[in-house]
Amino acid sequence: MKNPDEKPSRRKFLGAAGGTVAALALGDVARAQTKATTRVQGRNMTSLSERAATENPTRTVHEKLVGIATTPIAELDGIITPSDLHFTRHHAGIPTIAAESFELLVHGLVGRPTVFKLDDLRRLPARSMIRFLECAGNGVAGLRAIRRDLSPEAIDGATSNSEWTGVPLRTVLREVGVKPAARWILAQSQDAARYSRSIPLSKAQDDALLAYAQNGEPLRAEQGYPLRLLLPGWEGSASVKWLARLEVGDEPTLVREETVRYSNILPDGRVRVFESELGVKSIITFPAFPRQIAPGWWEIRGLAWSGRGRIARVEVSTDGGTRWSTAELDDPVLPKAHTRFRARWRWTGGTAVLVSRAVDESGAMQPSTQELRAERGPGNDYHNNNQRAWIVEGDGRVFFYPG
Amino acid sequence: MKNPDEKPSRRKFLGAAGGTVAALALGDVARAQTKATTRVQGRNMTSLSERAATENPTRTVHEKLVGIATTPIAELDGIITPSDLHFTRHHAGIPTIAAESFELLVHGLVGRPTVFKLDDLRRLPARSMIRFLECAGNGVAGLRAIRRDLSPEAIDGATSNSEWTGVPLRTVLREVGVKPAARWILAQSQDAARYSRSIPLSKAQDDALLAYAQNGEPLRAEQGYPLRLLLPGWEGSASVKWLARLEVGDEPTLVREETVRYSNILPDGRVRVFESELGVKSIITFPAFPRQIAPGWWEIRGLAWSGRGRIARVEVSTDGGTRWSTAELDDPVLPKAHTRFRARWRWTGGTAVLVSRAVDESGAMQPSTQELRAERGPGNDYHNNNQRAWIVEGDGRVFFYPG
Repeated sequence: MKNPDEKPSRRKFLGAAGGTVAALALGDVARAQTKATTRVQGRNMTSLSERAATENPTRTVHEKLVGIATTPIAELDGIITPSDLHFTRHHAGIPTIAAESFELLVHGLVGRPTVFKLDDLRRLPARSMIRFLECAGNGVAGLRAIRRDLSPEAIDGATSNSEWTGVPLRTVLREVGVKPAARWILAQSQDAARYSRSIPLSKAQDDALLAYAQNGEPLRAEQGYPLRLLLPGWEGSASVKWLARLEVGDEPTLVREETVRYSNILPDGRVRVFESELGVKSIITFPAFPRQIAPGWWEIRGLAWSGRGRIARVEVSTDGGTRWSTAELDDPVLPKAHTRFRARWRWTGGTAVLVSRAVDESGAMQPSTQELRAERGPGNDYHNNNQRAWIVEGDGRVFFYPG
Repeated sequence: MKNPDEKPSRRKFLGAAGGTVAALALGDVARAQTKATTRVQGRNMTSLSERAATENPTRTVHEKLVGIATTPIAELDGIITPSDLHFTRHHAGIPTIAAESFELLVHGLVGRPTVFKLDDLRRLPARSMIRFLECAGNGVAGLRAIRRDLSPEAIDGATSNSEWTGVPLRTVLREVGVKPAARWILAQSQDAARYSRSIPLSKAQDDALLAYAQNGEPLRAEQGYPLRLLLPGWEGSASVKWLARLEVGDEPTLVREETVRYSNILPDGRVRVFESELGVKSIITFPAFPRQIAPGWWEIRGLAWSGRGRIARVEVSTDGGTRWSTAELDDPVLPKAHTRFRARWRWTGGTAVLVSRAVDESGAMQPSTQELRAERGPGNDYHNNNQRAWIVEGDGRVFFYPG
């Protein structure tokens, strides 16, 4: 499946689709040249380039239930998530903050406790990076709710991928002078939850970013405007939004959101805390529920990502995991970023079970559902990176296929 | 300027800014924890994640004059242009086309002339790629209109950078079977201009894309919804939008937009036609008109791109081109894509002239304005890739500085 140009059967790609491509009639040239739109001046431009009138993408908003809105990942191509379709998780609503009066306090075990205005931070040497953000609970619907009518968005819609720009946190820490005893940083939001998380200094000094821009423009309000923490590859809940302060200390603060929540209870009753790095994961986004396909050639498409670095390869099976073949990956394959994979498949009718499994550059492979359950137990809420599967039934309808 | 961490002077980055960063007062922690937003539940989510109320980016629309809207490149970070801020050039308004009734006719010197529906094309093996699109006339304001009050958008706002998804044109050509005599393809729009361009078969077989998606979602109406041609690295006017048909032939059609327009008259009166590949280019987007800066450390920021491939390096001068230093480039550095560069600079007062020059992987360097004028003459309209410069005056105000 590596190179489409080498596959002899691909000439049949459309021919096998059952006559959707019509042979040319002589009138077709005239028809192409005199479409209705060729006869009237089009509309004027607008200050923002609008979506086509018939294209109205939307997120699914679970406001009352859990304060989450999900990205329609099966409706999107490529790897960049449009900013207005980025998933959101909030704990006390979306605060309204003016950039002009914004202040970030950095204090604690530092030599020069400092209040930064947004313009101060924008002035510092910046970095841009394309990285995914994912909710730690992503995938739980596919693991817990044993239902067939789950779409890719219902299972994994709490992941999105953007180009983020900001100042590396290590630069700010150098500005204020971190004291030798420093080990952890408490990041606190100015939302009504005063949402807080403890961040190890090692991550802060590595690739953590104080991000003020997303896909070129200032952060969306829901994404932490005007400033958020971005911890690439880590569960999204650690990337605190609407930042108010960073307090450098010598131990974690043990706030609610890193003890009662976002910690992982193992089968033997032990609890994994501060297990922040997300594992390697993939999901086929087409074909998937609620699509129905006809016999013929199809391109299986999906997304893969890992909190540990780049995706090394993605394997796809159409027989429930007996045989696997390697999918193609679109450039660029970036660390801690969504990666688009593609694989050709000819459906000849009958039942088929489609599964994908990704391998990251650390060598880790996405586990089967059985392997994940054995390791994490039935009560697992977070870090659900088990393989996702879809069943194609005899009539071509596609359903989620819990392992 | 390569590694910010190696620069001993960067600790002074904010200190030299003149006291904008306040030392901590004891009340600051309480102030950070009890901001007004911490006392009230925030607003609910909306189906699309909105811009912050105070952020209203917009394009400059020159509708009556030339049918062009430009991207506010100096207001953006990173390399991805939000789809609603992508520049637009049109010749007869924006047609409204329904995806369901869309048809692309491919005919001429082919074995199987074919009408493709949009779903047929979406079904074929796809590719995503991050590539710039640029109007051939970009930069002409900086070369012709000798004015100081030009912003980066006024000079170079007709370039944008997106992730495009579609089917490689070579795949469609293989489906229809190109005959041996084929050399050129006429691409025709279904807008009211029936805008048309002749594309060499070599480009069509190389990296040309029939694009239906931009930054993850269907094309914006102004970008050719539901299907456009994308010729990476070539002048934007060749990437025909709102495609109606592709006619394979043995010679170029010599339509108006490749003879009277979009051809280049040289000083000796000869005309370069089908000079489609865009040269290597860069522009400093900060500091630039209409900004005013204070003495101290600043990060010079800008964009570089080339129609020939990847940017190899960008050099920056702060003395009008006498001394040059190498700027940092943000990852990823992709072929035929915007690349973000950064360089540190301490302004100590007095007049300074900031210039950038990019070098691409072919070894080509962005020419000086004098070199471009010598090669192309005073009447040049297109392919203006001369070096752009800004003058910082004694009071810190920044103006365009024509060469």
